[in-house]
Amino acid sequence: MQAARLAESPPPRLRCGPVPYPFRHLLAIEGLEPPYIAELLELADHYALQNRRGTTQRDLLKGRTLINLFFEDSTRTRTSFELAGKRLGADIVNMSVSTSSVNKGETLLDTAATLNAMRTDLLVVRHGQSGAPALLAQKVDAAVINAGDGTHEHPTQALLDALTIRRRKGRLEGLTVAICGDVLHSRVARSNIHLLLTMNARVRIVGPPTLIPSEAGRLGVEVHHDMKSGLEGADVVMMLRLQKERMTGGLVPSAREFFRFFGLDAAKLAYAKPDAIVMHPGPMNRGVEIDSAVADDPARSVIGEQVEMGVAVRMAVLDLLSRNLRRNA
Amino acid sequence: MQAARLAESPPPRLRCGPVPYPFRHLLAIEGLEPPYIAELLELADHYALQNRRGTTQRDLLKGRTLINLFFEDSTRTRTSFELAGKRLGADIVNMSVSTSSVNKGETLLDTAATLNAMRTDLLVVRHGQSGAPALLAQKVDAAVINAGDGTHEHPTQALLDALTIRRRKGRLEGLTVAICGDVLHSRVARSNIHLLLTMNARVRIVGPPTLIPSEAGRLGVEVHHDMKSGLEGADVVMMLRLQKERMTGGLVPSAREFFRFFGLDAAKLAYAKPDAIVMHPGPMNRGVEIDSAVADDPARSVIGEQVEMGVAVRMAVLDLLSRNLRRNA
Amino acid sequence: MQAARLAESPPPRLRCGPVPYPFRHLLAIEGLEPPYIAELLELADHYALQNRRGTTQRDLLKGRTLINLFFEDSTRTRTSFELAGKRLGADIVNMSVSTSSVNKGETLLDTAATLNAMRTDLLVVRHGQSGAPALLAQKVDAAVINAGDGTHEHPTQALLDALTIRRRKGRLEGLTVAICGDVLHSRVARSNIHLLLTMNARVRIVGPPTLIPSEAGRLGVEVHHDMKSGLEGADVVMMLRLQKERMTGGLVPSAREFFRFFGLDAAKLAYAKPDAIVMHPGPMNRGVEIDSAVADDPARSVIGEQVEMGVAVRMAVLDLLSRNLRRNA
Repeated sequence: MQAARLAESPPPRLRCGPVPYPFRHLLAIEGLEPPYIAELLELADHYALQNRRGTTQRDLLKGRTLINLFFEDSTRTRTSFELAGKRLGADIVNMSVSTSSVNKGETLLDTAATLNAMRTDLLVVRHGQSGAPALLAQKVDAAVINAGDGTHEHPTQALLDALTIRRRKGRLEGLTVAICGDVLHSRVARSNIHLLLTMNARVRIVGPPTLIPSEAGRLGVEVHHDMKSGLEGADVVMMLRLQKERMTGGLVPSAREFFRFFGLDAAKLAYAKPDAIVMHPGPMNRGVEIDSAVADDPARSVIGEQVEMGVAVRMAVLDLLSRNLRRNA
Repeated sequence: MQAARLAESPPPRLRCGPVPYPFRHLLAIEGLEPPYIAELLELADHYALQNRRGTTQRDLLKGRTLINLFFEDSTRTRTSFELAGKRLGADIVNMSVSTSSVNKGETLLDTAATLNAMRTDLLVVRHGQSGAPALLAQKVDAAVINAGDGTHEHPTQALLDALTIRRRKGRLEGLTVAICGDVLHSRVARSNIHLLLTMNARVRIVGPPTLIPSEAGRLGVEVHHDMKSGLEGADVVMMLRLQKERMTGGLVPSAREFFRFFGLDAAKLAYAKPDAIVMHPGPMNRGVEIDSAVADDPARSVIGEQVEMGVAVRMAVLDLLSRNLRRNA
Repeated sequence: MQAARLAESPPPRLRCGPVPYPFRHLLAIEGLEPPYIAELLELADHYALQNRRGTTQRDLLKGRTLINLFFEDSTRTRTSFELAGKRLGADIVNMSVSTSSVNKGETLLDTAATLNAMRTDLLVVRHGQSGAPALLAQKVDAAVINAGDGTHEHPTQALLDALTIRRRKGRLEGLTVAICGDVLHSRVARSNIHLLLTMNARVRIVGPPTLIPSEAGRLGVEVHHDMKSGLEGADVVMMLRLQKERMTGGLVPSAREFFRFFGLDAAKLAYAKPDAIVMHPGPMNRGVEIDSAVADDPARSVIGEQVEMGVAVRMAVLDLLSRNLRRNA
């Protein structure tokens, strides 16, 4: 009966027509073409609706094995993928590996060989080194999903951010998005920049010179070093987590100093459009990169919706990538 | 066929009649009225029987998400909730959060917002601070179950203790229950005192003055400082775990000294009724609060049955609380 | 439909005829008779085929509770049992217990009592002390599977090794198997020696005198202290992990020294038969006990297949042992 009900509300007929989704893995946003991003967001929107209704299709990944391979701790992202997989009926195994016990490259490949031999279908990987998921993807039959690698990319975060923006603003094209704070160390920023530029949004990055990547000019974004000019007329203000643990060899700003110049409070938010939305990938350092009054303002903050869309986006990713897996006999 | 079989042995028609179970959360025993405690024990007894027969209903919580959010380690309680949820078909996600990485209030609320956005249905919380589950309950749509908070309450422990007593003694009313040892730091004792007094049992608390709460007199219990008078004529002897990790600022007794005066051995148990049962919430410090000969005496000790009833009670709690959750569309 | 398909490819009619599998537990290879080993390998082979086809029977252990009780870390073995259990439909609960918080014997028995009261059906145990799984098996109703205990045995590893050999060589009988390296501290070696001798293979153990058990002579194996004579004419070269963490009170060889004399490289492998296969239980210390060129040689190394057979063997063990469990009513 549940199956019947679901049959009545089928997933959207995807825009890209009858061609199969062309990617075996989701390693980065860079290189994804607009129709495939749009298709993924469309499907994720469908799952978001199903999740709210409680009518999620539960058999799609039945018999599929999803392994959450986390070389860095992240309760929040791991849980989001775990819920996404369970809601589609996959078998989930969590493998948390402390990097201290791992000898880089070689052992990573042995891990790949092991997971492959265990016939993993979907492999979600977080790793402290940029490129580790791509390396694994070369060695396994599973579809690999990058859940954050070093300072490289965090593609599902950019997709959930895009879905959240699209639901609130109706579109991505033509919007002005200010990405603020520690852009230098942020894989979230990097994935968002690629996605937003691909979808024809205007992107500004805002932060102190020490926290802006030197290649920023080449990325096609505007660079601002003060919040006033950076936020002026913005539709979306996307704050980043201050990644103190990644600040090696650089100048570490004091939290108080940082908040004074770059922390988002009501006064700075006033530079943006009156209906600008506020985003943060979480977990927040309240009083450092964002003020609680802004973070908790139901009229402006969409931080909770980002988390909700996170599960939906991951369901869409698992769904699309699983379509290219070998079929059960 | 299994469904058919289960249909033949339906859950008990609950005593409280057609009204829905009136609680969204299970945060404490204090304040629960007798009919609701009785109803819950009745349903738990039904699940205990099903568990023994191996005929547990497995679809009740299908599609429901249960998150085990443990800010304090507890393999035993976490496993009991996990089994209870799985036996009812829920999707379970374990989140262990070390309190060291958490900045109290604010971040707890961010965690609540995250879990809410992920559409958690049932949230089991253990936390070192009294009141943390109640705080979470104000912020989430999920039904919150307190799995132990600071020195406040541990309601499912009291319910499983009550179920164990009821199965052995046929009733709670009129029984004399001696709760012995470190009452001061024990949320188990606090929940048991509330439940037993509510159900018209007589409660004695027995321990050295330094381990008895100063407000004990107001609770409606008898206070004893020696085991002889405390256990005399008792139907139930409930030992507590000596919580050395909680003894801050107080006098920490030596294990040897404590055992001599307050450890339950055969000699002290002889003060109680000849058919008195012995209980312990586990894990036991053998040779500190209880002697192995007593703990392992099959005629007197019901410690194993307490663990068994733990799963049944948690199934009943999940069942009842899930009835008030939003329905699947 | 899936059920129908499975019905068409039934599990093998087991060789031992209509008698039930005679073991409640799998605690060791020592003492297992040839027909039961053969039967288990036969069934595992069936599961290996199903896994490759993706047609695994998923309801066999439905409603059964499998607890992974690991007192020592082992992501790889724990994951293999977890996947095996999930592919057969069991409910899996992972319990990782750090031995530091455990007071040996007594508390282990309390853990047993707890798991028993929770109605565990299948209990997978890894423990640093030899004999711990056997001790637990005396106290629980569950079927206990030893997943490695101290320096005693690791029976599923020997079974998966045997299955891998049998698939590559067609048989075990009459083969010459050289087990090389740190035999002294290796439960993998011990289980393999028992299994291979029972199945009429010839076993050589090869290593420096400090890493060969003094009772080796009595085991019925040939002892060699150099790789040349040890590998000469071998059909199978089984390398062991150098267990530095277990080398207490003994002479710890330097990695470089060890590799020079006992590490398997192409030159040493040339002593064995031209079609000899190379095995390793993993995780490998590359450049210590094995050279990467050998480990990754697709013509000789069967290390990936060992991992794959690990899941299949564990499925077979869970299947056979569950047949002797109490039935659901």
